[in-house]
Amino acid sequence: MPYVNIKITREGVTPEQKAELISGATELLQRVLNKNPKTTVVVIDEVETDNWGIGGEVVTELRKRQ
Amino acid sequence: MPYVNIKITREGVTPEQKAELISGATELLQRVLNKNPKTTVVVIDEVETDNWGIGGEVVTELRKRQ
Amino acid sequence: MPYVNIKITREGVTPEQKAELISGATELLQRVLNKNPKTTVVVIDEVETDNWGIGGEVVTELRKRQ
Amino acid sequence: MPYVNIKITREGVTPEQKAELISGATELLQRVLNKNPKTTVVVIDEVETDNWGIGGEVVTELRKRQ
Amino acid sequence: MPYVNIKITREGVTPEQKAELISGATELLQRVLNKNPKTTVVVIDEVETDNWGIGGEVVTELRKRQ
Amino acid sequence: MPYVNIKITREGVTPEQKAELISGATELLQRVLNKNPKTTVVVIDEVETDNWGIGGEVVTELRKRQ
Repeated sequence: MPYVNIKITREGVTPEQKAELISGATELLQRVLNKNPKTTVVVIDEVETDNWGIGGEVVTELRKRQ
Repeated sequence: MPYVNIKITREGVTPEQKAELISGATELLQRVLNKNPKTTVVVIDEVETDNWGIGGEVVTELRKRQ
Repeated sequence: MPYVNIKITREGVTPEQKAELISGATELLQRVLNKNPKTTVVVIDEVETDNWGIGGEVVTELRKRQ
Repeated sequence: MPYVNIKITREGVTPEQKAELISGATELLQRVLNKNPKTTVVVIDEVETDNWGIGGEVVTELRKRQ
Repeated sequence: MPYVNIKITREGVTPEQKAELISGATELLQRVLNKNPKTTVVVIDEVETDNWGIGGEVVTELRKRQ
Repeated sequence: MPYVNIKITREGVTPEQKAELISGATELLQRVLNKNPKTTVVVIDEVETDNWGIGGEVVTELRKRQ
Protein backbone atom coordinates (compact mmCIF):
# COMPACT_ATOMS: atom_id res chain seq x y z
CA MET A 1 0.00 0.00 0.00
CA PRO A 2 2.98 2.36 0.13
CA TYR A 3 3.17 5.17 -2.39
CA VAL A 4 6.58 6.15 -3.73
CA ASN A 5 7.18 9.22 -5.87
CA ILE A 6 10.52 9.60 -7.63
CA LYS A 7 11.28 13.00 -9.16
CA ILE A 8 14.19 13.19 -11.59
CA THR A 9 15.23 15.49 -14.38
CA ARG A 10 14.06 14.54 -17.88
CA GLU A 11 17.37 13.57 -19.43
CA GLY A 12 16.90 10.46 -21.52
CA VAL A 13 15.78 7.92 -18.96
CA THR A 14 14.84 4.72 -20.81
CA PRO A 15 11.75 2.55 -20.23
CA GLU A 16 14.10 -0.17 -18.96
CA GLN A 17 15.57 2.16 -16.35
CA LYS A 18 12.10 3.22 -15.27
CA ALA A 19 11.13 -0.43 -14.88
CA GLU A 20 14.22 -0.96 -12.69
CA LEU A 21 13.31 2.03 -10.51
CA ILE A 22 9.78 0.69 -10.09
CA SER A 23 10.81 -2.86 -9.24
CA GLY A 24 13.68 -1.64 -7.05
CA ALA A 25 11.53 0.71 -4.98
CA THR A 26 8.86 -1.97 -4.57
CA GLU A 27 11.45 -4.50 -3.39
CA LEU A 28 12.93 -1.97 -0.96
CA LEU A 29 9.57 -1.51 0.77
CA GLN A 30 9.05 -5.26 0.90
CA ARG A 31 12.53 -5.98 2.27
CA VAL A 32 12.61 -3.23 4.92
CA LEU A 33 8.97 -3.06 6.02
CA ASN A 34 7.49 -6.29 4.68
CA LYS A 35 4.99 -4.32 2.61
CA ASN A 36 2.87 -6.29 0.16
CA PRO A 37 4.35 -5.55 -3.29
CA LYS A 38 0.99 -6.09 -4.98
CA THR A 39 -0.39 -2.79 -3.71
CA THR A 40 2.80 -0.72 -3.74
CA VAL A 41 2.49 2.17 -6.18
CA VAL A 42 5.50 3.95 -7.71
CA VAL A 43 5.13 7.12 -9.77
CA ILE A 44 8.09 8.66 -11.61
CA ASP A 45 7.97 12.37 -12.45
CA GLU A 46 10.40 13.52 -15.12
CA VAL A 47 10.97 17.25 -14.78
CA GLU A 48 12.43 19.50 -17.51
CA THR A 49 15.87 20.82 -16.54
CA ASP A 50 14.46 24.36 -16.93
CA ASN A 51 12.03 23.58 -14.12
CA TRP A 52 14.51 22.15 -11.60
CA GLY A 53 16.79 24.26 -9.46
CA ILE A 54 19.47 23.49 -6.93
CA GLY A 55 21.71 25.99 -5.17
CA GLY A 56 19.49 28.75 -6.54
CA GLU A 57 20.43 27.85 -10.09
CA VAL A 58 18.52 26.22 -12.93
CA VAL A 59 19.79 22.72 -13.83
CA THR A 60 19.90 23.68 -17.53
CA GLU A 61 22.63 26.19 -16.65
CA LEU A 62 24.45 23.74 -14.38
CA ARG A 63 24.57 21.16 -17.16
CA LYS A 64 26.31 23.62 -19.52
CA ARG A 65 29.24 23.85 -17.15
CA GLN A 66 29.55 20.14 -16.47
CA MET B 1 -9.11 26.24 0.72
CA PRO B 2 -8.55 22.49 0.37
CA TYR B 3 -6.07 21.28 -2.19
CA VAL B 4 -6.82 18.04 -4.01
CA ASN B 5 -4.33 16.29 -6.27
CA ILE B 6 -5.56 13.46 -8.49
CA LYS B 7 -2.92 11.32 -10.18
CA ILE B 8 -4.04 9.06 -12.99
CA THR B 9 -2.40 7.39 -15.95
CA ARG B 10 -2.45 9.32 -19.22
CA GLU B 11 -4.84 7.18 -21.21
CA GLY B 12 -7.17 9.39 -23.17
CA VAL B 13 -8.98 11.27 -20.42
CA THR B 14 -11.20 13.91 -22.07
CA PRO B 15 -11.59 17.56 -21.02
CA GLU B 16 -15.18 16.75 -20.03
CA GLN B 17 -14.04 13.97 -17.71
CA LYS B 18 -11.44 16.28 -16.16
CA ALA B 19 -14.16 18.88 -15.57
CA GLU B 20 -16.26 16.21 -13.84
CA LEU B 21 -13.35 15.20 -11.60
CA ILE B 22 -12.78 18.84 -10.66
CA SER B 23 -16.43 19.62 -9.90
CA GLY B 24 -16.91 16.26 -8.17
CA ALA B 25 -13.92 16.67 -5.85
CA THR B 26 -14.95 20.23 -5.02
CA GLU B 27 -18.49 19.12 -4.18
CA LEU B 28 -17.16 16.27 -2.03
CA LEU B 29 -15.20 18.68 0.15
CA GLN B 30 -18.20 20.98 0.42
CA ARG B 31 -20.60 18.17 1.30
CA VAL B 32 -18.42 16.40 3.85
CA LEU B 33 -16.53 19.28 5.46
CA ASN B 34 -18.54 22.34 4.42
CA LYS B 35 -15.48 23.77 2.66
CA ASN B 36 -15.99 26.87 0.57
CA PRO B 37 -15.90 25.70 -3.06
CA LYS B 38 -14.60 29.07 -4.24
CA THR B 39 -11.13 28.45 -2.85
CA THR B 40 -10.92 24.68 -3.37
CA VAL B 41 -8.13 23.84 -5.79
CA VAL B 42 -7.98 20.58 -7.77
CA VAL B 43 -4.93 19.59 -9.81
CA ILE B 44 -4.96 16.54 -12.07
CA ASP B 45 -1.64 14.91 -12.95
CA GLU B 46 -1.68 12.60 -15.95
CA VAL B 47 1.26 10.22 -15.76
CA GLU B 48 2.64 8.23 -18.71
CA THR B 49 2.04 4.49 -18.28
CA ASP B 50 5.83 3.99 -18.53
CA ASN B 51 6.19 6.09 -15.38
CA TRP B 52 3.60 4.35 -13.21
CA GLY B 53 4.19 1.06 -11.45
CA ILE B 54 2.06 -1.20 -9.31
CA GLY B 55 3.02 -4.59 -7.95
CA GLY B 56 6.59 -3.86 -9.04
CA GLU B 57 5.55 -3.77 -12.66
CA VAL B 58 5.21 -0.94 -15.16
CA VAL B 59 1.61 -0.18 -16.18
CA THR B 60 2.59 -0.25 -19.88
CA GLU B 61 3.36 -3.96 -19.44
CA LEU B 62 0.23 -4.61 -17.38
CA ARG B 63 -1.93 -3.07 -20.11
CA LYS B 64 -0.51 -5.46 -22.76
CA ARG B 65 -1.87 -8.42 -20.81
CA GLN B 66 -5.29 -6.92 -20.10
CA MET C 1 -4.80 2.58 -9.49
CA PRO C 2 -5.41 6.32 -9.13
CA TYR C 3 -3.79 8.17 -6.26
CA VAL C 4 -5.71 11.00 -4.64
CA ASN C 5 -4.19 13.36 -2.09
CA ILE C 6 -6.50 15.66 -0.13
CA LYS C 7 -4.87 18.43 1.86
CA ILE C 8 -7.00 20.20 4.44
CA THR C 9 -6.36 22.22 7.58
CA ARG C 10 -6.32 20.27 10.85
CA GLU C 11 -9.49 21.58 12.42
CA GLY C 12 -11.34 18.74 14.07
CA VAL C 13 -12.10 16.47 11.13
CA THR C 14 -13.65 13.27 12.51
CA PRO C 15 -12.80 9.68 11.50
CA GLU C 16 -16.30 9.41 10.01
CA GLN C 17 -15.69 12.46 7.80
CA LYS C 18 -12.34 11.05 6.68
CA ALA C 19 -14.05 7.79 5.77
CA GLU C 20 -16.57 9.75 3.70
CA LEU C 21 -13.81 11.62 1.88
CA ILE C 22 -12.06 8.33 1.11
CA SER C 23 -15.17 6.53 -0.15
CA GLY C 24 -16.35 9.63 -2.01
CA ALA C 25 -13.09 10.18 -3.86
CA THR C 26 -12.89 6.49 -4.75
CA GLU C 27 -16.45 6.51 -6.12
CA LEU C 28 -15.72 9.68 -8.11
CA LEU C 29 -12.83 7.99 -9.94
CA GLN C 30 -14.95 4.93 -10.59
CA ARG C 31 -17.93 6.91 -11.85
CA VAL C 32 -16.02 9.32 -14.12
CA LEU C 33 -13.16 7.15 -15.37
CA ASN C 34 -14.32 3.62 -14.56
CA LYS C 35 -11.24 3.13 -12.36
CA ASN C 36 -11.13 -0.06 -10.29
CA PRO C 37 -11.91 1.03 -6.71
CA LYS C 38 -9.85 -1.85 -5.27
CA THR C 39 -6.55 -0.20 -6.16
CA THR C 40 -7.53 3.45 -5.72
CA VAL C 41 -5.49 5.03 -2.93
CA VAL C 42 -6.59 8.15 -1.04
CA VAL C 43 -4.29 9.94 1.41
CA ILE C 44 -5.55 12.81 3.57
CA ASP C 45 -3.01 15.32 4.89
CA GLU C 46 -4.16 17.45 7.80
CA VAL C 47 -2.06 20.59 7.97
CA GLU C 48 -1.77 22.84 11.05
CA THR C 49 -3.37 26.24 10.45
CA ASP C 50 0.04 27.83 11.22
CA ASN C 51 1.44 25.99 8.20
CA TRP C 52 -1.21 26.94 5.64
CA GLY C 53 -1.37 30.30 3.92
CA ILE C 54 -3.73 31.88 1.46
CA GLY C 55 -3.63 35.43 0.16
CA GLY C 56 -0.19 35.77 1.75
CA GLU C 57 -1.66 35.28 5.20
CA VAL C 58 -1.51 32.42 7.70
CA VAL C 59 -4.84 30.63 8.21
CA THR C 60 -4.46 30.89 12.00
CA GLU C 61 -4.75 34.67 11.59
CA LEU C 62 -7.62 34.41 9.12
CA ARG C 63 -9.59 32.25 11.56
CA LYS C 64 -9.33 34.90 14.29
CA ARG C 65 -11.20 37.35 12.10
CA GLN C 66 -13.91 34.95 10.96
CA MET D 1 18.11 20.93 2.22
CA PRO D 2 14.62 22.37 1.88
CA TYR D 3 12.47 21.18 -0.98
CA VAL D 4 10.13 23.68 -2.62
CA ASN D 5 7.51 22.71 -5.16
CA ILE D 6 5.77 25.44 -7.15
CA LYS D 7 2.72 24.46 -9.15
CA ILE D 8 1.46 26.92 -11.74
CA THR D 9 -0.64 26.73 -14.87
CA ARG D 10 1.24 26.26 -18.15
CA GLU D 11 0.67 29.64 -19.74
CA GLY D 12 3.86 30.79 -21.38
CA VAL D 13 6.23 31.06 -18.44
CA THR D 14 9.70 31.87 -19.80
CA PRO D 15 13.01 30.25 -18.77
CA GLU D 16 14.02 33.61 -17.28
CA GLN D 17 10.92 33.70 -15.09
CA LYS D 18 11.57 30.12 -13.97
CA ALA D 19 15.12 31.08 -13.04
CA GLU D 20 13.75 33.98 -10.98
CA LEU D 21 11.32 31.70 -9.16
CA ILE D 22 14.15 29.27 -8.38
CA SER D 23 16.58 31.91 -7.12
CA GLY D 24 13.82 33.77 -5.27
CA ALA D 25 12.55 30.69 -3.41
CA THR D 26 16.11 29.70 -2.51
CA GLU D 27 16.85 33.17 -1.15
CA LEU D 28 13.60 33.17 0.84
CA LEU D 29 14.61 29.98 2.68
CA GLN D 30 18.06 31.39 3.32
CA ARG D 31 16.76 34.74 4.59
CA VAL D 32 14.00 33.42 6.84
CA LEU D 33 15.48 30.14 8.11
CA ASN D 34 19.18 30.49 7.31
CA LYS D 35 19.00 27.38 5.11
CA ASN D 36 22.07 26.55 3.06
CA PRO D 37 21.22 27.54 -0.52
CA LYS D 38 23.57 24.90 -1.95
CA THR D 39 21.23 22.05 -1.05
CA THR D 40 17.89 23.81 -1.53
CA VAL D 41 15.91 22.15 -4.30
CA VAL D 42 13.12 23.90 -6.22
CA VAL D 43 10.87 22.04 -8.66
CA ILE D 44 8.35 23.88 -10.84
CA ASP D 45 5.35 21.95 -12.15
CA GLU D 46 3.53 23.53 -15.07
CA VAL D 47 0.00 22.17 -15.25
CA GLU D 48 -2.25 22.37 -18.33
CA THR D 49 -5.22 24.68 -17.74
CA ASP D 50 -7.51 21.71 -18.51
CA ASN D 51 -6.04 19.95 -15.49
CA TRP D 52 -6.40 22.74 -12.94
CA GLY D 53 -9.63 23.63 -11.23
CA ILE D 54 -10.66 26.30 -8.78
CA GLY D 55 -14.14 26.98 -7.49
CA GLY D 56 -15.22 23.70 -9.07
CA GLU D 57 -14.44 25.03 -12.53
CA VAL D 58 -11.68 24.24 -15.02
CA VAL D 59 -9.18 27.09 -15.53
CA THR D 60 -9.52 26.77 -19.31
CA GLU D 61 -13.13 27.89 -18.94
CA LEU D 62 -12.26 30.64 -16.46
CA ARG D 63 -9.72 32.08 -18.88
CA LYS D 64 -12.33 32.39 -21.64
CA ARG D 65 -14.32 34.77 -19.46
CA GLN D 66 -11.39 36.90 -18.32
CA MET E 1 19.61 15.71 -7.17
CA PRO E 2 16.66 13.30 -7.32
CA TYR E 3 13.87 13.73 -4.81
CA VAL E 4 12.16 10.62 -3.48
CA ASN E 5 9.03 10.73 -1.35
CA ILE E 6 7.92 7.55 0.41
CA LYS E 7 4.45 7.56 1.94
CA ILE E 8 3.61 4.76 4.37
CA THR E 9 1.12 4.27 7.18
CA ARG E 10 2.31 5.21 10.67
CA GLU E 11 2.52 1.79 12.24
CA GLY E 12 5.65 1.57 14.35
CA VAL E 13 8.40 2.08 11.77
CA THR E 14 11.72 2.31 13.63
CA PRO E 15 14.50 4.84 13.05
CA GLU E 16 16.67 1.95 11.79
CA GLN E 17 14.06 1.01 9.19
CA LYS E 18 13.79 4.63 8.09
CA ALA E 19 17.56 4.80 7.70
CA GLU E 20 17.40 1.66 5.53
CA LEU E 21 14.70 3.17 3.33
CA ILE E 22 16.78 6.33 2.90
CA SER E 23 20.02 4.56 2.07
CA GLY E 24 18.22 2.01 -0.11
CA ALA E 25 16.40 4.60 -2.20
CA THR E 26 19.59 6.63 -2.60
CA GLU E 27 21.51 3.55 -3.78
CA LEU E 28 18.71 2.65 -6.20
CA LEU E 29 19.00 6.02 -7.94
CA GLN E 30 22.77 5.71 -8.07
CA ARG E 31 22.71 2.15 -9.41
CA VAL E 32 20.04 2.66 -12.08
CA LEU E 33 20.66 6.25 -13.20
CA ASN E 34 24.14 6.99 -11.86
CA LYS E 35 22.75 9.86 -9.78
CA ASN E 36 25.12 11.52 -7.32
CA PRO E 37 24.07 10.23 -3.87
CA LYS E 38 25.33 13.41 -2.19
CA THR E 39 22.41 15.47 -3.46
CA THR E 40 19.70 12.81 -3.45
CA VAL E 41 16.94 13.74 -1.02
CA VAL E 42 14.54 11.21 0.51
CA VAL E 43 11.52 12.27 2.56
CA ILE E 44 9.37 9.72 4.40
CA ASP E 45 5.77 10.65 5.23
CA GLU E 46 4.10 8.54 7.90
CA VAL E 47 0.34 8.81 7.55
CA GLU E 48 -2.17 7.89 10.28
CA THR E 49 -4.22 4.82 9.32
CA ASP E 50 -7.37 6.97 9.69
CA ASN E 51 -6.06 9.16 6.87
CA TRP E 52 -5.20 6.43 4.36
CA GLY E 53 -7.76 4.66 2.23
CA ILE E 54 -7.60 1.86 -0.30
CA GLY E 55 -10.51 0.21 -2.05
CA GLY E 56 -12.72 2.99 -0.71
CA GLU E 57 -12.07 1.89 2.86
CA VAL E 58 -10.05 3.40 5.69
CA VAL E 59 -6.93 1.40 6.62
CA THR E 60 -7.89 1.53 10.32
CA GLU E 61 -10.92 -0.59 9.43
CA LEU E 62 -8.94 -2.91 7.17
CA ARG E 63 -6.46 -3.59 9.97
CA LYS E 64 -9.24 -4.73 12.32
CA ARG E 65 -10.11 -7.55 9.96
CA GLN E 66 -6.55 -8.68 9.26
CA MET F 1 -3.98 30.35 -8.03
CA PRO F 2 -0.45 28.96 -7.67
CA TYR F 3 0.18 26.27 -5.09
CA VAL F 4 3.51 26.31 -3.27
CA ASN F 5 4.66 23.50 -1.00
CA ILE F 6 7.69 24.08 1.22
CA LYS F 7 9.19 21.04 2.92
CA ILE F 8 11.64 21.64 5.75
CA THR F 9 12.89 19.68 8.73
CA ARG F 10 11.01 20.17 12.00
CA GLU F 11 13.61 22.05 13.97
CA GLY F 12 11.96 24.83 15.92
CA VAL F 13 10.54 26.99 13.14
CA THR F 14 8.44 29.72 14.79
CA PRO F 15 4.97 30.90 13.73
CA GLU F 16 6.57 34.23 12.74
CA GLN F 17 9.02 32.49 10.43
CA LYS F 18 6.20 30.47 8.87
CA ALA F 19 4.27 33.68 8.27
CA GLU F 20 7.34 35.14 6.54
CA LEU F 21 7.67 32.08 4.31
CA ILE F 22 4.01 32.31 3.36
CA SER F 23 4.05 36.03 2.59
CA GLY F 24 7.44 35.76 0.86
CA ALA F 25 6.39 32.93 -1.44
CA THR F 26 3.14 34.71 -2.28
CA GLU F 27 5.00 37.93 -3.14
CA LEU F 28 7.50 35.98 -5.26
CA LEU F 29 4.73 34.59 -7.45
CA GLN F 30 3.15 38.03 -7.75
CA ARG F 31 6.42 39.76 -8.62
CA VAL F 32 7.68 37.22 -11.17
CA LEU F 33 4.46 36.00 -12.77
CA ASN F 34 1.92 38.63 -11.75
CA LYS F 35 -0.17 35.98 -9.98
CA ASN F 36 -3.09 37.17 -7.91
CA PRO F 37 -1.97 36.85 -4.27
CA LYS F 38 -5.56 36.31 -3.10
CA THR F 39 -5.71 32.80 -4.47
CA THR F 40 -2.09 31.76 -3.94
CA VAL F 41 -1.88 28.86 -1.52
CA VAL F 42 1.27 28.00 0.47
CA VAL F 43 1.55 24.81 2.53
CA ILE F 44 4.54 24.19 4.81
CA ASP F 45 5.39 20.58 5.70
CA GLU F 46 7.65 20.14 8.71
CA VAL F 47 9.33 16.73 8.54
CA GLU F 48 10.96 14.97 11.49
CA THR F 49 14.74 14.73 11.07
CA ASP F 50 14.41 10.92 11.33
CA ASN F 51 12.29 11.02 8.17
CA TRP F 52 14.56 13.17 6.00
CA GLY F 53 17.65 11.86 4.27
CA ILE F 54 20.32 13.45 2.12
CA GLY F 55 23.42 11.76 0.78
CA GLY F 56 21.93 8.44 1.86
CA GLU F 57 22.06 9.49 5.48
CA VAL F 58 19.37 10.45 7.98
CA VAL F 59 19.41 14.13 8.98
CA THR F 60 19.26 13.16 12.68
CA GLU F 61 22.70 11.60 12.26
CA LEU F 62 24.02 14.52 10.21
CA ARG F 63 22.98 16.97 12.93
CA LYS F 64 25.00 15.06 15.58
CA ARG F 65 28.18 15.75 13.66
CA GLN F 66 27.47 19.42 12.94
